[in-house]
Amino acid sequence: VVDGAPRVIPTAHWVSGGRLYIHGATKAGFAKALTGGAEACVTVTLLDGLVMARSAFHHSVNYRSVILYGRPHEVTDPAEKTEAFRHFLERVAPGRWDTLRPIQDKEVKATTVLAFDLDEASAKIRSGPPIDDEEDYALPIWAGVIPVTTRTGAPQDDPRLAEGLTPPEHLRLDTHP
Amino acid sequence: VVDGAPRVIPTAHWVSGGRLYIHGATKAGFAKALTGGAEACVTVTLLDGLVMARSAFHHSVNYRSVILYGRPHEVTDPAEKTEAFRHFLERVAPGRWDTLRPIQDKEVKATTVLAFDLDEASAKIRSGPPIDDEEDYALPIWAGVIPVTTRTGAPQDDPRLAEGLTPPEHLRLDTHP
Repeated sequence: VVDGAPRVIPTAHWVSGGRLYIHGATKAGFAKALTGGAEACVTVTLLDGLVMARSAFHHSVNYRSVILYGRPHEVTDPAEKTEAFRHFLERVAPGRWDTLRPIQDKEVKATTVLAFDLDEASAKIRSGPPIDDEEDYALPIWAGVIPVTTRTGAPQDDPRLAEGLTPPEHLRLDTHP
Repeated sequence: VVDGAPRVIPTAHWVSGGRLYIHGATKAGFAKALTGGAEACVTVTLLDGLVMARSAFHHSVNYRSVILYGRPHEVTDPAEKTEAFRHFLERVAPGRWDTLRPIQDKEVKATTVLAFDLDEASAKIRSGPPIDDEEDYALPIWAGVIPVTTRTGAPQDDPRLAEGLTPPEHLRLDTHP
């Protein structure tokens, strides 16, 4: 909330050691607001399916979402920040961190890391077929679920890739949970 | 914003006639807050890829997002609400509306429809390969993009489907843009 008005920013997140982390450029508005003590609401949603019912009213979506409220703690210690970045990248591409050009002090400084305690959060899940009015089940209308999935594809080389390099094993993301 | 604190609710949306619509149960907290005149921030994001750079710092994501701010207009006329629902379903499954059990007055009443003017919105897009520090391009580190796509799968029958029904053509969603 900035000047009383809501601001919703899409951002990556990761969970490590019982905390949820987000990061951003230190100069970004949302980082400034949150290091200034503002309360935040973090919402994460996965869409699992489109639920097709026999009436418009009972159409729905299958999804999993988590909402948490809190004032984040800013991670300021450079070693702790670096460790947080490592956890983030390990979550996405296990083993990649150690293959990279080492992180620089100025890069750590230029990035704000915010940690939310996970003491309290609310989860909502919808799954399964439509729930129609009892008398509608006999109608000759197809009903069911259209599954929705998000997948990673084959790695695409940077056009400026140094000669002879191929995507490493840690980027075969489909093999990770 | 409720009592000064942010509330971020995942919800479906649709665009029709130059407006962005959302809907919800009339008794839902967010519907009550917004019909009460609160300002909202609507954020829509599509994740297109994971951008793998030669340093941790330049890792990023490819995405498309739109953020709009405004106080929504509540659609209260029952005929106009019904038309809005029809547009929503047509967007998801063209032709389906006419195959359904007709909508009932009490269903229209039980649903709040909120319309946002699209006069002002901000869009952000990142696409393409990583942008690394010039001196890092020569390093023997694979870099590029892992594409991320969201797809719909084959329709799954409701276990209580009336005999002899098969998924209609309008649910072959992969053939739609």
